[in-house]
Amino acid sequence: MSTLTDRPVLRLLPKANARAIRRGAPWVFDNELVMDRRTRGIAPGTIATLVDHERAELATVAVNPASKIVARVLDRAQVEIDTDWMSARVEKALSLRERVYGAPFYRLIHAEADGFPGLIVDRFGDTLVVQPNAAWIDALLDPLTAVLAAVTRCTVVLKNASGRGRTLEGLDDADTVLLGQAPTAPVPVEMNGATYMADVVGGQKTGLFYDQRENQAFAARLAQGASVVDIFSHVGGFGLAAAAGGAKSVLCVDSSAPALELATKGAGAMALGDRFATRQGDAFATMEALAQENRRFDLVVCDPPAFAPAKPALEKGLRAYERVARLGAALVKEDGYLVLCSCSHAADLASFTGACLRGMGRAGRRATLIHTGFAGADHPQLPQLAESGYLKALFFRL
Amino acid sequence: MSTLTDRPVLRLLPKANARAIRRGAPWVFDNELVMDRRTRGIAPGTIATLVDHERAELATVAVNPASKIVARVLDRAQVEIDTDWMSARVEKALSLRERVYGAPFYRLIHAEADGFPGLIVDRFGDTLVVQPNAAWIDALLDPLTAVLAAVTRCTVVLKNASGRGRTLEGLDDADTVLLGQAPTAPVPVEMNGATYMADVVGGQKTGLFYDQRENQAFAARLAQGASVVDIFSHVGGFGLAAAAGGAKSVLCVDSSAPALELATKGAGAMALGDRFATRQGDAFATMEALAQENRRFDLVVCDPPAFAPAKPALEKGLRAYERVARLGAALVKEDGYLVLCSCSHAADLASFTGACLRGMGRAGRRATLIHTGFAGADHPQLPQLAESGYLKALFFRL
Repeated sequence: MSTLTDRPVLRLLPKANARAIRRGAPWVFDNELVMDRRTRGIAPGTIATLVDHERAELATVAVNPASKIVARVLDRAQVEIDTDWMSARVEKALSLRERVYGAPFYRLIHAEADGFPGLIVDRFGDTLVVQPNAAWIDALLDPLTAVLAAVTRCTVVLKNASGRGRTLEGLDDADTVLLGQAPTAPVPVEMNGATYMADVVGGQKTGLFYDQRENQAFAARLAQGASVVDIFSHVGGFGLAAAAGGAKSVLCVDSSAPALELATKGAGAMALGDRFATRQGDAFATMEALAQENRRFDLVVCDPPAFAPAKPALEKGLRAYERVARLGAALVKEDGYLVLCSCSHAADLASFTGACLRGMGRAGRRATLIHTGFAGADHPQLPQLAESGYLKALFFRL
Repeated sequence: MSTLTDRPVLRLLPKANARAIRRGAPWVFDNELVMDRRTRGIAPGTIATLVDHERAELATVAVNPASKIVARVLDRAQVEIDTDWMSARVEKALSLRERVYGAPFYRLIHAEADGFPGLIVDRFGDTLVVQPNAAWIDALLDPLTAVLAAVTRCTVVLKNASGRGRTLEGLDDADTVLLGQAPTAPVPVEMNGATYMADVVGGQKTGLFYDQRENQAFAARLAQGASVVDIFSHVGGFGLAAAAGGAKSVLCVDSSAPALELATKGAGAMALGDRFATRQGDAFATMEALAQENRRFDLVVCDPPAFAPAKPALEKGLRAYERVARLGAALVKEDGYLVLCSCSHAADLASFTGACLRGMGRAGRRATLIHTGFAGADHPQLPQLAESGYLKALFFRL
C-alpha cells in the first residue's frame, strides 16, 4: 500500500468547486483538474492527495486518468488506506445491515455510499461475493479479503469480475476464489419468508439481486389467495415472495432457462407443489400469448431489465416501459394489482410513472397508485449522487 | 337523492380538455365550464350531468359553483348515486385495506382515489370517523352511514366536521354521532406492534394519523437497543413504534399536553415503564435545549406539521424544514439515524430533500440516504392528482 509521503498530488483548477468536495462531493472530473503529463501518467488505482488550486489538502483520492471521473474521494482527511481504514468502514456498513435485517443476506458494501467507491460486496450467509469495479480496490483485494473475513466471520470470499466498469479501469475479467472454497451448488437465501436459490459462482445472470427486497415484501402483502404472474421473473424474486405471502398460484415468466431452473428449485425448497409454474420465453411475446389465452391474474408484476440505462436510450426505454405497462395491464383482473418496476438510471420517477400511465391508459385501464418503493436500505445513496436512486417500483390498483 | 332525468346539465367550454375527463381527470375548473346564471344558481352538492361542448355525456359530477373546482367527477357513466353505487365503492376500498392490513385500523376511504371526492373515513376497530368535506356527500350522510355500517359491520359512526374544506362548501362545523354511541374514552389502536390511544371524539388534534404507518414500521426496524427522540411526537406515532421495535429509551417531545397525555397512556398500555418519557414544549426550543444539555440519540425523528401547505408558503416552509434538519442532526450520535418528514403539499421530494441536506450540512454532518417512504397504501393516490403525494419521510444515516 502507498504511504502518505510518496503519494502523487492532484491539483484542482481554479474554476473547480473545492467547496463541493469539502461538502461531500465524491467525484472529481477531468475538466476540474490540472491534467499535466505527470497526472496523465499515474497508474489507474493509485492513491493520491487532492489539493485545491492553492495547494491546500482536500482529500485522499483514488486516481484513474483514463476515466472521465479522474479522482474518487476515499477520505476527506490525509490517511493511510490500510486494513484499519477498511475495517472501520466495513464495520460501519455491517452495523446498518445487522440493524435492519434479521438474517445475513444483503448487500454489505454499496460503493460510494458505504465509503468504498467502485466496490460492491453481496453477502449470502457465510459467503461474500466481491465486485471490485475500480482499480484502487482491485489492487487492495488481498487486505480487503482479510478485513471482510475478520469483520463478518464469513468463510468464503469470491471475486466476481463481470462488472462493466472493470474494462475502463484496465482490469481483468477473471472470476476467482479469494478465500475458502467456492460452493458447488446454489446457495439457499431466506428473504421475505421465501427461499431463493442463488448461483453465486455463475455471476449476475443467475445470482440474486437484493435491491427489490422491500418491494417484494410489499407485493407479498397483496398476494394472499391471489393468482400471480411474475414477468421477467429471473430466479423468482417477486413470484416466490408472493407464494410465501399466500398466493393461490404463481407463474414465473423469463427468457432464461437457468434462471427459471433456480426459481423452480426455490419453489421446491418451499414445497409449493402445483401452486408454482414457469414459462420460458420472451416476456413481451409471452404477455401477448397469455392475453390471447384469456389468462387474467389478481397480481401482475413486471420487473424488466434496464431499458434506459443511460440518457441516449431514454426515449426508446420509456416506450419499452409503456409497452410493458400496456401488456401487463391487459393481464390484470378487475380490481387487481399491477406492479411496474424500473432499474434504469436515466428514467426518473416522474417520467417512468408517465410511461406507466400511458401504457395502462392504452390498455383501457384506469389506476390508482397505492405504493411507491425504491431499493432497500442495504443500497444506501449518497445524496450528492442522484443517479444512485435507480430502482423504482410502482404498485397500481386497476 | 336526485334521479337521472331531473339533473342539471353542466357544459364544457370548447377549449376545455374533454379527453382528459374521459381519461380520468377528476376535477373540472370554473374556467373550463359554461358558467351561465343557471349554473351559478346550482346549490352546492347537487349531482349533475357533465357534457362536452357538443352535448355528449361525459360524467356524473358533484357541483359546487362557489368553488374553483366547480365539478368533481363521481362516475364516468350516467348513474344514480344511490346506496348500491356507494356500497360497491366502499366494498372495493375495504378489500384493499383488508388485503394489506391484518387489523381493522386504517383509512378506509381516501377521497378521490377511492371514488368519493371530498370524503375521508378512518376506521378504529368498530368505530368509523367520517369527514364529509364536500357538500354532495354531506347531503348523503344518512345513506352513506347505512352503507358503511352494512359493509364494514362497524357499530359506531361519528361525523368529524373539522375539515377546512367544509366552510367553502357551505357546511356546518358540528361534530355529531351518526350511528351508535360515541366512545367515552380513547380508543386503543394496534399498529406496528405498538398501542396508540386515539381520541376519536376530540378530533384531529388528538386523533390518530394512519399515513405514517409504513415509515413508523421502518423506524422501528432501526430502533433495537437504541435511544430515541420523537420530535413533534403528537400521540407518540414514531416513538411508540420505536419502543415496540426494542428501543432502549424513548423521549416524546410535543407542544400539546393532551397529545402527550395520550402518548403516555399508550406507553402505559405497552408497559414501557421508565423506557418512556415525554417533554412538553416548543419543538425548536426543546431541540436547542437538548443539544445544550449534551443529549445525543441513536435515532432522531422529526415529523413536523405542514410548514409549506401551499405554494405561497414554500420558501418559508423550506427554511423551517432546513432548521428542523439542522437542530435534529445536532442530536444524532455518530453513525446514528435521522428521520425527517414533510406532509407539505407544496414541498416536493427534491426541494424537501435539498432543505434537509442544507440543514444537516449546516450542522456539520454528512449523511447517506438509506430509505425514502411515502404515505401508506390506505392513502392511495389518483395519478392525475400529483398533489395527493404530500407525505415524504427521509431516513438518513449520519
